[in-house]
Amino acid sequence: MTSTKTTAEDLWNDVIRVREKTPLVHNITNLVVMSYNANVLLALGAAPVMAHAREEVAEMTAIASALVINIGTLQSEWVDAMKLAAHSAHSHQIPVVLDPVGAGATSYRNRIVEELLTDARPDIIRGNASEIMSIAGASEATKGVESTRSSDNAVNAARKLAIGINGTVCVSGETDYVFDEAGRKASLKNGHVWMTRITGTGCSASAMIGAFSAVQPDHWRATAAAMAYMGIAGEMAAELVISKGLGIGSMQIALLDRLQLMTKDDFLTRLKMSVDS
Amino acid sequence: MTSTKTTAEDLWNDVIRVREKTPLVHNITNLVVMSYNANVLLALGAAPVMAHAREEVAEMTAIASALVINIGTLQSEWVDAMKLAAHSAHSHQIPVVLDPVGAGATSYRNRIVEELLTDARPDIIRGNASEIMSIAGASEATKGVESTRSSDNAVNAARKLAIGINGTVCVSGETDYVFDEAGRKASLKNGHVWMTRITGTGCSASAMIGAFSAVQPDHWRATAAAMAYMGIAGEMAAELVISKGLGIGSMQIALLDRLQLMTKDDFLTRLKMSVDS
Amino acid sequence: MTSTKTTAEDLWNDVIRVREKTPLVHNITNLVVMSYNANVLLALGAAPVMAHAREEVAEMTAIASALVINIGTLQSEWVDAMKLAAHSAHSHQIPVVLDPVGAGATSYRNRIVEELLTDARPDIIRGNASEIMSIAGASEATKGVESTRSSDNAVNAARKLAIGINGTVCVSGETDYVFDEAGRKASLKNGHVWMTRITGTGCSASAMIGAFSAVQPDHWRATAAAMAYMGIAGEMAAELVISKGLGIGSMQIALLDRLQLMTKDDFLTRLKMSVDS
Repeated sequence: MTSTKTTAEDLWNDVIRVREKTPLVHNITNLVVMSYNANVLLALGAAPVMAHAREEVAEMTAIASALVINIGTLQSEWVDAMKLAAHSAHSHQIPVVLDPVGAGATSYRNRIVEELLTDARPDIIRGNASEIMSIAGASEATKGVESTRSSDNAVNAARKLAIGINGTVCVSGETDYVFDEAGRKASLKNGHVWMTRITGTGCSASAMIGAFSAVQPDHWRATAAAMAYMGIAGEMAAELVISKGLGIGSMQIALLDRLQLMTKDDFLTRLKMSVDS
Repeated sequence: MTSTKTTAEDLWNDVIRVREKTPLVHNITNLVVMSYNANVLLALGAAPVMAHAREEVAEMTAIASALVINIGTLQSEWVDAMKLAAHSAHSHQIPVVLDPVGAGATSYRNRIVEELLTDARPDIIRGNASEIMSIAGASEATKGVESTRSSDNAVNAARKLAIGINGTVCVSGETDYVFDEAGRKASLKNGHVWMTRITGTGCSASAMIGAFSAVQPDHWRATAAAMAYMGIAGEMAAELVISKGLGIGSMQIALLDRLQLMTKDDFLTRLKMSVDS
Repeated sequence: MTSTKTTAEDLWNDVIRVREKTPLVHNITNLVVMSYNANVLLALGAAPVMAHAREEVAEMTAIASALVINIGTLQSEWVDAMKLAAHSAHSHQIPVVLDPVGAGATSYRNRIVEELLTDARPDIIRGNASEIMSIAGASEATKGVESTRSSDNAVNAARKLAIGINGTVCVSGETDYVFDEAGRKASLKNGHVWMTRITGTGCSASAMIGAFSAVQPDHWRATAAAMAYMGIAGEMAAELVISKGLGIGSMQIALLDRLQLMTKDDFLTRLKMSVDS
């Protein structure tokens, strides 16, 4: 953990690190976003691998540089695989990212999240407001998996959860907030509301956090870099397609293009970050 | 059920209802189309959730406004989940849509369809000609899952099946026919042949029927609205990409754009519907 | 097996055969690429079906014209289904294609590949250099599933493996090499490096080999035709999107367009093939 001020240049350097090192990110993720997540990681410059058989996950994690687990389409065998993979990740000292999709929506999902907090011990969690509040013990119901409004409650829940897991927590929404266990806070205001209308952008942000934390040992900074990069790519993609009279189908594709082709200048001129540390 | 004539304006009003109410649609669907279906629902203005664990499907359905089950990539555990979810849907009085992908192709698939007819009791079924004929007991073989030619046999099968399930049946093809248990019939002639060359357009139409029937209690009308909207979006997308020398890859994306951005004027000037009621 | 020289015209004729016969290709493939593979097959003019339930795979294969098995996201039940489907394929004398995604990455994966070699007896195998070397018993480690560099070792491994399985083996990379049991060798130099940054292009090439081998009994020729067609579509797509300042998201879509719309002239003027037979 660094105590110096984190700058836009620092985050861009992490982008370059991902592009240069092509970290292998092991994803045990949901069936809806698997393909898009893989393409997002490839666009970013990372290397995705998806594998969920209990027989092999520990070994697969062992050759990866980060593990991302996502409970979007839960199934009991997959949960076992997530735990095995997380154990392997910890013993190989690579970061574990948890995306608690739909936490709060069903009691099964809540139970599994609790198990994963105890047994997979994520280093980083990213979720929307209702998911983070659900995990942190707050009492706002999830409406499916598309809830995105951040609120003071969600921000407080994220801060509390970061301390609880002794790690980094991002609550994403119109503004993305990133907290760590030491109370550092980054607020990121990039992005576009249409990102909530493309399936898998949140899950892909989590996958990207895996890639960044594979190359940047300060997980709070890695998470901020991933969220900033995704937000800027998203707003560039939205502007592009809206200017052409196109919609969210085209934006889904344009987002991949921007993740691949974003320049330092794009990043530095667009980044809207404030940091309290 | 209404006895007044259903108009183009009525169907457009259902589109607006979906956009305004953002109904949560629970999909237990196949692995091929899951991502595209989610994006179609988001483009339309609905909210998708995919969940198939037996431990949670009943609860997930309980917070949704419609349930869509699709047997494209069957697996026994998923069938159990479909039944549990359907029971929950009925007890919460939300509509159940069945897409019997590939019915007639294998004896297992036929058996599961029979079980679902009995045990999931769909309110609405949408399939292509060979699927609907297979279910209705007709004797034309399925060639995989891409068969799309409607015929008099298929139309009769759909009419008969609607009575059999005491609900709504749509047989889709060059013309889409929608029947209900009272014998109402809508014929819809929008669409484009290239839609059959994009995986998941049929399944996505079924998912859209879920969204429309969540906001329009007349399931026959909801089904007609969904099929009309999909057909018009498809033909607009095809015209757009063909005019640019592009193909079905681009059309898949343009279809999402049109689902999101279609105007009332687009809908009313293009709709080709005739109704016998 | 033919002993006359295979020409560009021959390969183009196989493309036409696929477009005219619309062969049904049964895919038991991984969760990441399923949707893209289906769209690739549809763009090519083939008909995809995905089904993996043990209860139905044998019957589904029996109505198909080729079987493609892909171990990208292994799971034990799926392996059983692959074996059952392969037995059905052999008894119905349709070709079996194996894509050994990630072979060499874990011991489980290696064991399953061995089981499939014995029990599914593929007629054709396509993989990248590290996968083919792993199967052929060479000793270079896989880095995930994205390794693509061909080398002399890989070429020798492919030649040896073709003899070992008494069939056709393609090792893909910057140059794709196709060998058969009689020592015929085709070298194909089409393609673009960005193809490695779109998830599922390799898997889709394997699916296309299924479609071509369904209509062309000379499997070596069918495999060369599929790889040539994919490579040319890929380079056309890359040129198109790069000229517009777009990236790999757009290329993924443009590739589908080119698979659908490629002309004989495109194919014949671009093909870079050399044959030793």
